[in-house]
Amino acid sequence: MGKEMNSSHNYPYPLLVPPPFRWDQREVNEPKVHEWIETLDVTSVVPPDWSQVDVTILGVPLSRSSISASAASENPDAIRRAWKYFTTYNLEEDVDLTVLKVIDLGDVRQHVTDISVCHRNIREAMVAMRTHHPNTFPLMIGGDHSITAMLVKGWKAAHPEERIGILQLDTHFDLRSLEDNGPSNGTPIRNLIESGTVKGEDVFNIGLHGFFNAKSLKEYAHRSGVNYITLKEARKRGVARTVEEALQQLADKVDTIYLTVDMDVLDISVGPGAPASTPGGMRSDELFEAVQIAGSCPRVRAMDIVCLDPVKDVAQATVKAGVHVMLSFLTGFAKRKS
Amino acid sequence: MGKEMNSSHNYPYPLLVPPPFRWDQREVNEPKVHEWIETLDVTSVVPPDWSQVDVTILGVPLSRSSISASAASENPDAIRRAWKYFTTYNLEEDVDLTVLKVIDLGDVRQHVTDISVCHRNIREAMVAMRTHHPNTFPLMIGGDHSITAMLVKGWKAAHPEERIGILQLDTHFDLRSLEDNGPSNGTPIRNLIESGTVKGEDVFNIGLHGFFNAKSLKEYAHRSGVNYITLKEARKRGVARTVEEALQQLADKVDTIYLTVDMDVLDISVGPGAPASTPGGMRSDELFEAVQIAGSCPRVRAMDIVCLDPVKDVAQATVKAGVHVMLSFLTGFAKRKS
Amino acid sequence: MGKEMNSSHNYPYPLLVPPPFRWDQREVNEPKVHEWIETLDVTSVVPPDWSQVDVTILGVPLSRSSISASAASENPDAIRRAWKYFTTYNLEEDVDLTVLKVIDLGDVRQHVTDISVCHRNIREAMVAMRTHHPNTFPLMIGGDHSITAMLVKGWKAAHPEERIGILQLDTHFDLRSLEDNGPSNGTPIRNLIESGTVKGEDVFNIGLHGFFNAKSLKEYAHRSGVNYITLKEARKRGVARTVEEALQQLADKVDTIYLTVDMDVLDISVGPGAPASTPGGMRSDELFEAVQIAGSCPRVRAMDIVCLDPVKDVAQATVKAGVHVMLSFLTGFAKRKS
Amino acid sequence: MGKEMNSSHNYPYPLLVPPPFRWDQREVNEPKVHEWIETLDVTSVVPPDWSQVDVTILGVPLSRSSISASAASENPDAIRRAWKYFTTYNLEEDVDLTVLKVIDLGDVRQHVTDISVCHRNIREAMVAMRTHHPNTFPLMIGGDHSITAMLVKGWKAAHPEERIGILQLDTHFDLRSLEDNGPSNGTPIRNLIESGTVKGEDVFNIGLHGFFNAKSLKEYAHRSGVNYITLKEARKRGVARTVEEALQQLADKVDTIYLTVDMDVLDISVGPGAPASTPGGMRSDELFEAVQIAGSCPRVRAMDIVCLDPVKDVAQATVKAGVHVMLSFLTGFAKRKS
Amino acid sequence: MGKEMNSSHNYPYPLLVPPPFRWDQREVNEPKVHEWIETLDVTSVVPPDWSQVDVTILGVPLSRSSISASAASENPDAIRRAWKYFTTYNLEEDVDLTVLKVIDLGDVRQHVTDISVCHRNIREAMVAMRTHHPNTFPLMIGGDHSITAMLVKGWKAAHPEERIGILQLDTHFDLRSLEDNGPSNGTPIRNLIESGTVKGEDVFNIGLHGFFNAKSLKEYAHRSGVNYITLKEARKRGVARTVEEALQQLADKVDTIYLTVDMDVLDISVGPGAPASTPGGMRSDELFEAVQIAGSCPRVRAMDIVCLDPVKDVAQATVKAGVHVMLSFLTGFAKRKS
Amino acid sequence: MGKEMNSSHNYPYPLLVPPPFRWDQREVNEPKVHEWIETLDVTSVVPPDWSQVDVTILGVPLSRSSISASAASENPDAIRRAWKYFTTYNLEEDVDLTVLKVIDLGDVRQHVTDISVCHRNIREAMVAMRTHHPNTFPLMIGGDHSITAMLVKGWKAAHPEERIGILQLDTHFDLRSLEDNGPSNGTPIRNLIESGTVKGEDVFNIGLHGFFNAKSLKEYAHRSGVNYITLKEARKRGVARTVEEALQQLADKVDTIYLTVDMDVLDISVGPGAPASTPGGMRSDELFEAVQIAGSCPRVRAMDIVCLDPVKDVAQATVKAGVHVMLSFLTGFAKRKS
Repeated sequence: MGKEMNSSHNYPYPLLVPPPFRWDQREVNEPKVHEWIETLDVTSVVPPDWSQVDVTILGVPLSRSSISASAASENPDAIRRAWKYFTTYNLEEDVDLTVLKVIDLGDVRQHVTDISVCHRNIREAMVAMRTHHPNTFPLMIGGDHSITAMLVKGWKAAHPEERIGILQLDTHFDLRSLEDNGPSNGTPIRNLIESGTVKGEDVFNIGLHGFFNAKSLKEYAHRSGVNYITLKEARKRGVARTVEEALQQLADKVDTIYLTVDMDVLDISVGPGAPASTPGGMRSDELFEAVQIAGSCPRVRAMDIVCLDPVKDVAQATVKAGVHVMLSFLTGFAKRKS
Repeated sequence: MGKEMNSSHNYPYPLLVPPPFRWDQREVNEPKVHEWIETLDVTSVVPPDWSQVDVTILGVPLSRSSISASAASENPDAIRRAWKYFTTYNLEEDVDLTVLKVIDLGDVRQHVTDISVCHRNIREAMVAMRTHHPNTFPLMIGGDHSITAMLVKGWKAAHPEERIGILQLDTHFDLRSLEDNGPSNGTPIRNLIESGTVKGEDVFNIGLHGFFNAKSLKEYAHRSGVNYITLKEARKRGVARTVEEALQQLADKVDTIYLTVDMDVLDISVGPGAPASTPGGMRSDELFEAVQIAGSCPRVRAMDIVCLDPVKDVAQATVKAGVHVMLSFLTGFAKRKS
Repeated sequence: MGKEMNSSHNYPYPLLVPPPFRWDQREVNEPKVHEWIETLDVTSVVPPDWSQVDVTILGVPLSRSSISASAASENPDAIRRAWKYFTTYNLEEDVDLTVLKVIDLGDVRQHVTDISVCHRNIREAMVAMRTHHPNTFPLMIGGDHSITAMLVKGWKAAHPEERIGILQLDTHFDLRSLEDNGPSNGTPIRNLIESGTVKGEDVFNIGLHGFFNAKSLKEYAHRSGVNYITLKEARKRGVARTVEEALQQLADKVDTIYLTVDMDVLDISVGPGAPASTPGGMRSDELFEAVQIAGSCPRVRAMDIVCLDPVKDVAQATVKAGVHVMLSFLTGFAKRKS
Repeated sequence: MGKEMNSSHNYPYPLLVPPPFRWDQREVNEPKVHEWIETLDVTSVVPPDWSQVDVTILGVPLSRSSISASAASENPDAIRRAWKYFTTYNLEEDVDLTVLKVIDLGDVRQHVTDISVCHRNIREAMVAMRTHHPNTFPLMIGGDHSITAMLVKGWKAAHPEERIGILQLDTHFDLRSLEDNGPSNGTPIRNLIESGTVKGEDVFNIGLHGFFNAKSLKEYAHRSGVNYITLKEARKRGVARTVEEALQQLADKVDTIYLTVDMDVLDISVGPGAPASTPGGMRSDELFEAVQIAGSCPRVRAMDIVCLDPVKDVAQATVKAGVHVMLSFLTGFAKRKS
Repeated sequence: MGKEMNSSHNYPYPLLVPPPFRWDQREVNEPKVHEWIETLDVTSVVPPDWSQVDVTILGVPLSRSSISASAASENPDAIRRAWKYFTTYNLEEDVDLTVLKVIDLGDVRQHVTDISVCHRNIREAMVAMRTHHPNTFPLMIGGDHSITAMLVKGWKAAHPEERIGILQLDTHFDLRSLEDNGPSNGTPIRNLIESGTVKGEDVFNIGLHGFFNAKSLKEYAHRSGVNYITLKEARKRGVARTVEEALQQLADKVDTIYLTVDMDVLDISVGPGAPASTPGGMRSDELFEAVQIAGSCPRVRAMDIVCLDPVKDVAQATVKAGVHVMLSFLTGFAKRKS
Repeated sequence: MGKEMNSSHNYPYPLLVPPPFRWDQREVNEPKVHEWIETLDVTSVVPPDWSQVDVTILGVPLSRSSISASAASENPDAIRRAWKYFTTYNLEEDVDLTVLKVIDLGDVRQHVTDISVCHRNIREAMVAMRTHHPNTFPLMIGGDHSITAMLVKGWKAAHPEERIGILQLDTHFDLRSLEDNGPSNGTPIRNLIESGTVKGEDVFNIGLHGFFNAKSLKEYAHRSGVNYITLKEARKRGVARTVEEALQQLADKVDTIYLTVDMDVLDISVGPGAPASTPGGMRSDELFEAVQIAGSCPRVRAMDIVCLDPVKDVAQATVKAGVHVMLSFLTGFAKRKS
């Protein structure tokens, strides 16, 4: 017989596999991030008290669906390993993240040769999270951008009555036609629009610039009502204010805002490990402030961080920036509780 | 509308795309390898005279089917770009490869999100080659090892009456069960055996060593009759003699020997760009001699080179070794003509 | 006999060699940059209709003339290979570069051991371009900065009546004495002044900063009338406004402005592949805006991009920035047509 | 208050800290190495049944004591992370390591600024292992070579009546005077001789070559009776036979043979991550065979692997070779049980 | 016998060793930095006329005391080797550093296995400098941040009557308790406060940000009166103005300001070679301006640059930034003379 | 005025520049190689007693003459910096190199833009060495292979009556026509033959293999009488015996044998820093033995080591192999004295 989980009987849902390793949590007073985030104990017969859990981390190690070769599938583990470089205390905001209880669920189970199974598992993992612990905030670590379509579809399946909006920080529209290559990392937003999951007008893209989107994609954005503010415009108004206004406009009409951060929104010098990062992109301080603002907006109810290939990284700069994005968001999120 | 070939009307078969670039062939007297190998001219209304073509090169840029992340899909182009570092003249053997006419057909068209389409295209590309120009020798540049199953199945489909044997130079058995992950790069030989394409007893694996195969795979090899000689044994007898004897045994019973070279057979210091290369593997001079011997064996009628990830390479050592494998084989092949 | 071009009979001028490879141009609707820029077809008996050609690209693969070892000679090909990462559509400016017809002429033929031959060929290549197609804009990809002197001298030889001005974006003056080392990459501007090709007062250098120029060079600049604005000053006024004013001052007195971009003007974190890039240099968004402004100025009639060594690059950041410089310039240039 | 172990009450001895992470052990049938080796469960109230434990792994993350800067302190974790690339089955020897029960104890606690405390802890950790579970084989992962002196001294303290011999595979004598720099990584063997822990005549060094030892060290070796066979001599006799004879000579006179493998014995192309590896060193197949022979010798009762800096490694080649050394040794060790 | 200096008889103090190499100083008119800075001639029987010496450079190659593995011990030599990339002339400030006489004293002698000896030597080296040439400005190149405590203690020992203030440019407080690990690179400021060398209120830290300090350290800073301005605040006010105000406040109460620059204050994209640099840190132009301002403040009487690991650097960017920090400071310093 | 040597008045000949740095020679008893080799003291008014000098080291930092971009010009300094990793004592041969007096003369002065000046200076430097100290052995560190032609021509000019033979360890013939590119690194042997400096029959090339020489070059070798033994043949006979026989054949007819070692003779895994190293090349132990044999042959009277680009190196493996080549040769050389 083949592979078998020796402990899956009490794992919360069968689509998940535990993280491949767990940190030994030895520091109780002032933990580093890896000592603070708990790993779901799949050997315990007692499930966690979900009502006390603020956030779940979910790894989505899929990058077979990338147009160009990517090892973003190795990112969830790279992010986990880099937690140890960060404290839980945000000095500038005077926020201690330990007010939040965060549990790492592990990864969505992937299939090696059938990407549609991968995509189905990802969607079902979101459905399961919304079913088992609907009051926790799901924070997903990709993987490539194709996962966003599946995750939002999962949310919609769990909450069919909700109107969902998207705040996208990205160098690209991700509005390519699914006819070309299927649901790849170039298509998630179009996928969501064409499947009726999200209305074009409920999408806000901030960060577009330069020569990285075909003209027809912009035309599709116009036809379908997708909102976008280029990086140059955003800098003119102020990136923070731009994000605030976009969130406000979305919050006025949707029930749930899903935040998706494509790490290639960063300038290539800042995010060399994002395979499609470009010269002329966002600075890290701009991105950290943007996601912190989103974190504090109560209507933002799910988030993913995608398209970070740790194998291509230089000096771990992009992986550490990815962790910082996650922590900056949680800083805003922690403020919701106060 | 989407993508469209502006010249595909006269391309030999619709499963192929031309190589992304072509070398300018400026040297007529003493070409480098990139000046000698011709690129199929898809704009010409006259097809090549296939009766004059000895060898076709076919890129198979698929590595989504790898168990671990791999950019072996970028290898066909990396190999093409490295041709310029080699002359056509093998000094030690006094063989000039220009006695052979070699045409680069380009790559098998791949699908971004449906690996079964990729695999079908690969199989059909082999069928097409066997149909359109059955007297040319097909030399495939992968991609990962999953492609071998598809290529051999294509051969079998084109020549159902033939008995096919396999000479495999590899650190691994590639006999994993397809039930676990589908037709990944861990399964090609088992795939061929279980589908009835090749008999276990018609497979010879040379190069196994160390701690890189589960015990159950060895037991499967025994049950299914797969022949193997570990690297240590091969060195005792002499690698060259081992290869000669394996070829002889195969030639005595099969119609066609398919040679598959997994670049991870090389020691990790020699082949750092093969994602699964290991300490304790083969030296490059051993491998070059082995494939040259295979090249001179008339029963060897097709070949592939797989599992070389140029992104992971160091100092281009593995890519250059990959080119050398191809040229060493062709040196043996050229001797068939003399 | 030695090397021979098998197709040079109809190549436009004997000083050129075709690019070593050509992209297969398969996409007709929405090309990537490598599918849009045409390669001169040297096998065609009919030359292009030069009146329809807006821009020619010319590689100048010379870096033997660098003071310190440099592989900037490999840059023209590196730039060509990186075109595929860019679309032709500038989203922020709503400019589609396909309104321009751009032809890649290939490279100026170089000599391995006689740098004076290289320099002569470069000058003559410019003369030939000005003679054969005087209405196309020549955009040169170096190579090191020594080529600028030769290219401007070629322009002057073809248009002896013109007064030529230079807009230089650079961390260095490039005013070293030719007596020390001959016409190296430290000397082009002084070379042009001392040869009487350009007046010192018709040179504007923007980007100087830090500890990267000897005091005597500044004194030479003062004596010879060379204008310069340091990076700190430029930022105070606004880099864009500084460039506009410099162009205006030049346009008031010269016939032709030649734009030369030394990639080492970029900060070392942004342009690690420019051998002499430094801490404290320009940001990429500043540089892209500067060249776009220059592109839209009708008096700017030629351009080069120099001192980019792709072997030293990190994560391809500098090569991609180099392509972006070229495309940002062409964005401005395209506006001239509207 | 400061740091505190939340689970140390039942950890076997206070000098240890658990490994920073533990692998999730999910595969029960055919484990990879990281799924086979157990991590000591410090939260369990029941200690393991030591009589059933064959081998303990102990990390010794000290490299502050290196003469030149080294990050060999990161090696124990690097080795642990690389276990996943290996199966437990040695194909060539037909040995399945799962016949052995192996427990990873974690690391010896280190001090940041007091190296003498580090050294004391290392010695005491060995004493504790010999006291708590004297029938398990201790396999230590360094760290730099200074640890060997402390480990052997610990053994001697636990077994004062024993005569201890050393088989050293190394490019260096490690016989430098302690007067120069204290007990650094250049001194362990001299330290043991001068402290009376081991007699010079009971030391066998195999692997010396080239220009990497001062003449005075050779003279010291002669004076103190240290045995050595240079790599050239060993190859003449056969490396395997040389090792066998050395083990035999030692076994005839000592009670315990301690095997110490300095990874810099490997050629620099094979072991680039060993800071002091050199051109002209050992091949990996020679080293693997040597340690397997030592593994099968019953008198060999402890082992360490030192001087591997994973930060300097290339393509993980040295770390993987380090794991292979450990597994090759255990292959020999497993044969003792049969 | 062991090592012996063949020239130490006339070296100024026994704690120093000459730099391992000296530049040949061949250019007399317009030197590069390595041709301008003199190396103490230890073979001369005549000592330098210290009254003419403005600045001494002192290497402090200690990084064994780092919490995580670091090769900052190799930084003094890396800085020396990079001097050749810089002229002595600051174009933007029109300052020629050759108005200053600067002598490189070499390095403080270190011990391999006894960090307390290293620390004692560092302290004594400062005492010796203050004794032998009290009117020269000491500029120290670390090494890790633990050295700052020793250097300031040395100053205090030489000038017990002085009140010393500290301007710290750093991402971290460096206020960890010495009880945990001894005087490591996490503790220098606390070490100085708790030893009574410096009052908490006389410390100014500029550059803190993000998730890189435990909350308890901030609380300690508050309790002990340490002043700090986070990077976000500093940018709001202007980094230059913030530095000026901090210097003013210190100058109003202390006799001597010691400037310590931890290179990890830089953003990780700008300072990848600082082991603890982070995303969200300072830009190089901000840092260069800050230290230049400090250089011009007469109360600043000593300086160090620490925590730069050249082995981890990318494209030499951080080492070059380190040299620029030194030269920017000296630019300010040179203005004191005018 | 321009550059000026402040100490050249007593430098032995005006074509040389001192090495850019000199090691501080602090160890008198058991020096490392950098402490043993002396640097010519150009400030001394007394020249060395040349009769006591056995060997001079001369750097020849020219690589502008390479066909493809190379930074071999940085090799002399890289070799000098790597001396510190080696002792002077060859353990296996029991030879202490300190019996030899070796002086580093510095580098041949190069010109930035006139390669013919570089070549002339190289030739004249050899003439000067033969004139000023004809009894010392000149050991040259390149630079690319073009320098060999100039060095041998210089020898011939100094000793016109001598018949000179060449032992070449190389993957290439270096017999390309000078008509193509002038005296590049592909031509030195042909240059010497066609200029009448050396007879073809007096050249022995050992190490050729694979696909790295055009067929016409082999034909030229045959026509001109150049002797060669491919690597495969040499291994059959034994590399050592092959070298001995070649030396014997040369010694029987020539007065002086010049040994030239092109580092690209090494396999690419062993010599990644030799730009043209290839898969299938020589092992380092083979090369070290070959040059040691040559070192002991009294007729070998000059040597160079060329084509090593330290910028392309991996883990310093090639640079360290280059130093080992030099020391292995000197080991043989030292035996001449005994």
